[in-house]
Amino acid sequence: MPSVDNVLVKIPVTEKQAAAMMATMPSATFDFAAPVGDTSRLPRTPKLDISRERVSQADVILGNVAPALIEASPRLQWIQLGSAGYEAYLAPGVLAPSTIVTNGTGAYGPAVAEHSFAMLLSLMKRLPAYRDDQRAHAWSDEGMVSTLAGARVLVLGAGDIGLCFARLCTAVGASCVGVRRHLPSMSTPEYEQAFSRVTTMDELVHMLPKADVVACFLPSSAETQGLVADAFLGSMKTGAYLVNAGRGDLIDQDALRRALEDGKLAGAALDVATPEPLPADDPLWDAPNLLITPHVAGFWHLHATLERVVALATENLRRYVRGEQLKNIVRG
Amino acid sequence: MPSVDNVLVKIPVTEKQAAAMMATMPSATFDFAAPVGDTSRLPRTPKLDISRERVSQADVILGNVAPALIEASPRLQWIQLGSAGYEAYLAPGVLAPSTIVTNGTGAYGPAVAEHSFAMLLSLMKRLPAYRDDQRAHAWSDEGMVSTLAGARVLVLGAGDIGLCFARLCTAVGASCVGVRRHLPSMSTPEYEQAFSRVTTMDELVHMLPKADVVACFLPSSAETQGLVADAFLGSMKTGAYLVNAGRGDLIDQDALRRALEDGKLAGAALDVATPEPLPADDPLWDAPNLLITPHVAGFWHLHATLERVVALATENLRRYVRGEQLKNIVRG
Repeated sequence: MPSVDNVLVKIPVTEKQAAAMMATMPSATFDFAAPVGDTSRLPRTPKLDISRERVSQADVILGNVAPALIEASPRLQWIQLGSAGYEAYLAPGVLAPSTIVTNGTGAYGPAVAEHSFAMLLSLMKRLPAYRDDQRAHAWSDEGMVSTLAGARVLVLGAGDIGLCFARLCTAVGASCVGVRRHLPSMSTPEYEQAFSRVTTMDELVHMLPKADVVACFLPSSAETQGLVADAFLGSMKTGAYLVNAGRGDLIDQDALRRALEDGKLAGAALDVATPEPLPADDPLWDAPNLLITPHVAGFWHLHATLERVVALATENLRRYVRGEQLKNIVRG
Repeated sequence: MPSVDNVLVKIPVTEKQAAAMMATMPSATFDFAAPVGDTSRLPRTPKLDISRERVSQADVILGNVAPALIEASPRLQWIQLGSAGYEAYLAPGVLAPSTIVTNGTGAYGPAVAEHSFAMLLSLMKRLPAYRDDQRAHAWSDEGMVSTLAGARVLVLGAGDIGLCFARLCTAVGASCVGVRRHLPSMSTPEYEQAFSRVTTMDELVHMLPKADVVACFLPSSAETQGLVADAFLGSMKTGAYLVNAGRGDLIDQDALRRALEDGKLAGAALDVATPEPLPADDPLWDAPNLLITPHVAGFWHLHATLERVVALATENLRRYVRGEQLKNIVRG
């Protein structure tokens, strides 16, 4: 490892976690730019003062520092992102060519999966309609409900998040089929427990009509942009549910609105939209049987996510010192 | 068995289910007063014409006929209620002394448990607040969320519903303690899988401060009425959640409102209230972090509930013909 003098930490940590990080590199100076202390009740939008100067002194950065502040610092050896997304850091001029980038993939599975699962159950039990009734002080019966017990769930994007989501659905009695871009060379016990079957996108057209729930956790790519449009929605079972907690550009929102208005879908749960924030005058807000949250499933809203990011960063510090292969390398 | 000439059926059944019922008593006449056909999409409030005359001819009734229509018919040998509640049928003058009463206990576990579970997860992920934001077209972050993974759940009333609820919570990573009025003489595998421990009401005072969630599925009795008042709520952990899907009179609603306003509780999910319907001017409607539904967790809103009631009624018809002990006898 090249010599590390300064580590800039922009992840909130407890004092114990800070000490564990420092213990990995006893000779380095650690600059904690995010709060150190109790991380179980973080403010909604912590205001941090991260100057260009502070960033320019860092040999290693743990956490997401605004790309504009980094200015391709030749000093920066490695940045461990807290986020799963990393595209902005690979843009030309943001990082020096030698800077290694690792991301937070794997930390968000439980949080995004649980949020999506809660949204889906909420729709199945008509809780958004009951919430509206509550606001109107109306004791009003909203009729028949659905269940995941015995339901067939199709999970598009069966990575970390999709696996966690399938585990939850399977645990309450659903049967899950996973769809991946590429089948792994061998199945793991985790996959076998969560999924009755894992298949590829080629089979999508055969799987869609059978699913009671289609849940999407796909990254944005040329293959996925606009995938959920009229043909896709038309192939789904009438009365099925759609969940999207991947990227908003997966969905043609006008087509989705029509599918909800026609009653083709029983409901849709979205944590992402196009654009974000969704403009106040967008007709999607008022689509029937739609529940939308503002891209909050991930982030650090669930304390366990932060714990995982801190554990990953600390483990990667240890590996960096020892010259071992870092986890979650996206460049370098 | 005394001779049965006429069976009045006031439970919606499919044609196949109707045939199975009739096959149990080939010589009896079956009067189907509820719809026969597809029961998967029942109307919200089916209008049924059940005259006094129709009721007076029945030797056996399957389903809940209004007590006022029965008029203590001496002809009525047995009524199989669809509901778990039966108090109204035991009031003086409703049934002849010889009429046997069986109820629908056991049919409602999955439905009430799933509804309660969905409400709890919805609160933990702040979905009611996000729903309000959606109605206001506001893309607004509501902050930190909670999880059932690793949470300690105390289930008051560990019968059929409490067991189903604990199963769901355990399946997503919670640890459940059940509280029953009387400990069963021996534990079953179902209880052992769902609960880490089952205890009695005597221990309540020790258990309350440890629980992240307190979920109540208690019947109404002198012991339970008003149990959840200031002292109970004060003993709970700050930031815990309360769920009630038993009877509304368990809770002192003014005390609950204060506990929500003070931030003592992180949230409360109620499917029941006092009185029902809750009057439009009741301040409970607007309590912070409260989610309320209008006593809809049970009924036949979940199709599986109806399937269970029909199966129970058909099984009891078979037993009645053979002179065997009926299931779910509450009188007779």
